[in-house]
Amino acid sequence: MKLLIGNKNYSSWSMRPWVMLTQFDIPFEEVMVRFDSFAPDSKFKAAIGPLSPVGKVPLLVEDDGFVIWDTLAIAEYVAEKFPDKGLWPRDARRRARARSVCAEMHSGFSALRGAFGMNIEASLPEVGKRVLAGNAAARADLARVIQLWQEALAESGGPFLFGDYSIADAYFTPVVTRLRTYALPVPDDVAAYMARVFAAKGTAAWIRDALEEKEFLQFEEDYRTSRD
Amino acid sequence: MKLLIGNKNYSSWSMRPWVMLTQFDIPFEEVMVRFDSFAPDSKFKAAIGPLSPVGKVPLLVEDDGFVIWDTLAIAEYVAEKFPDKGLWPRDARRRARARSVCAEMHSGFSALRGAFGMNIEASLPEVGKRVLAGNAAARADLARVIQLWQEALAESGGPFLFGDYSIADAYFTPVVTRLRTYALPVPDDVAAYMARVFAAKGTAAWIRDALEEKEFLQFEEDYRTSRD
Ligand SMILES: N[C@@H](CCC(=O)N[C@@H](CS)C(=O)NCC(=O)O)C(=O)O
Ligand SMILES: N[C@@H](CCC(=O)N[C@@H](CS)C(=O)NCC(=O)O)C(=O)O
Repeated sequence: MKLLIGNKNYSSWSMRPWVMLTQFDIPFEEVMVRFDSFAPDSKFKAAIGPLSPVGKVPLLVEDDGFVIWDTLAIAEYVAEKFPDKGLWPRDARRRARARSVCAEMHSGFSALRGAFGMNIEASLPEVGKRVLAGNAAARADLARVIQLWQEALAESGGPFLFGDYSIADAYFTPVVTRLRTYALPVPDDVAAYMARVFAAKGTAAWIRDALEEKEFLQFEEDYRTSRD
Repeated sequence: MKLLIGNKNYSSWSMRPWVMLTQFDIPFEEVMVRFDSFAPDSKFKAAIGPLSPVGKVPLLVEDDGFVIWDTLAIAEYVAEKFPDKGLWPRDARRRARARSVCAEMHSGFSALRGAFGMNIEASLPEVGKRVLAGNAAARADLARVIQLWQEALAESGGPFLFGDYSIADAYFTPVVTRLRTYALPVPDDVAAYMARVFAAKGTAAWIRDALEEKEFLQFEEDYRTSRD
């Protein structure tokens, strides 16, 4: 299997399946398609267009060329292909709950995502403070994500959202990095969960690579004009 | 199982699991939570709030009170609970493809959805023409949905997107009703697929109920001030 991804510093959707595959020791070949822009005539679209009707990363490509697009469909496909790995929680109701929060993430949190673009290398606490103060929808999204994590951890007993590490943790990993980049305020139990996510080997490996990229993409930056 | 839904004329997300359960002869109890508004002090939120952290319909509630929110998670849960019904295509790759298009629908098509709210009872061909002409993003969404259906039907041979009726068809049913309400232009093969979706018993039953509701909700209406 190949996984096509975008820049590790910026591509939050790419991060989810990459982190998941790495965390569960599922071998795959990484193919990086660097972002230049998302314009129809960009190199990015030229590379992705022939493979995907949607023109976005991540893409999972099977050895014979069969392509699966969209993060959630990739996660389900890999979970089915490696049933022994336990990518979803093994208990049916925990699994249902894990899928609820992934589906919620998949279609929601647009204010949080819009205001606080993923930017692993950056540290923008002042921006975080200012933007959060002026954006009620982002505050509501932040409150919801905190509530969601706290409820899941309380029900499962941790250490991850549904007990053992699962797709749901991978799904929220880019949010965890955003909360750190913008230093958004979280309660201690949530900070402890975030620390466990950062320490997970999939997250750690991705972040190490992201920090080595050293590419600055102005169109992905809402608050900076250069790396510091 | 109980399924909590909103008004049948307007609630596109509610329509998906209801149509799916009905189509596959899976017994459930329908609980209608009429929309008054989505304000924090609405009757709708008062009814849904204690059951769901997200405050939206649809909700699936098991007999012992276990709640599953978000359409896609409900679909996966029911597919697992009734494995013999074949809610997803039985072939692994068709299943992957079906999940890709559902995930795409789940998080996308926001221009089409924003411009053309579901409104089963209404007939707004003039609005459709005018709004489509002025909205490039909605035109792009329409083109994508047509392409998606044509490719799926060509690969599977029909009559439904992935051969037999599946969750994917239920997932696109509200879009099918929008294309009719606003008389958006589609090629003949797509019109034929839409006719098959309308004839499917799940769709037909929902629409019959929607037409009997006779409730006019101004906050759900972008283009009318009363029923005609
Ligand atoms: N719903 C998609 C979203 C993927 C997505 O938006 N990817 C971004 C990069 S993080 C992209 O490729 N954007 C290109 C574009 O918007 O044209 C998924 O889950 O895979
Ligand atoms: N992603 C959710 C979307 C559900 C949704 O937006 N439902 C609408 C009715 S069609 C709702 O309950 N809206 C209430 C609100 O937005 O406050 C799902 O798939 O279930």
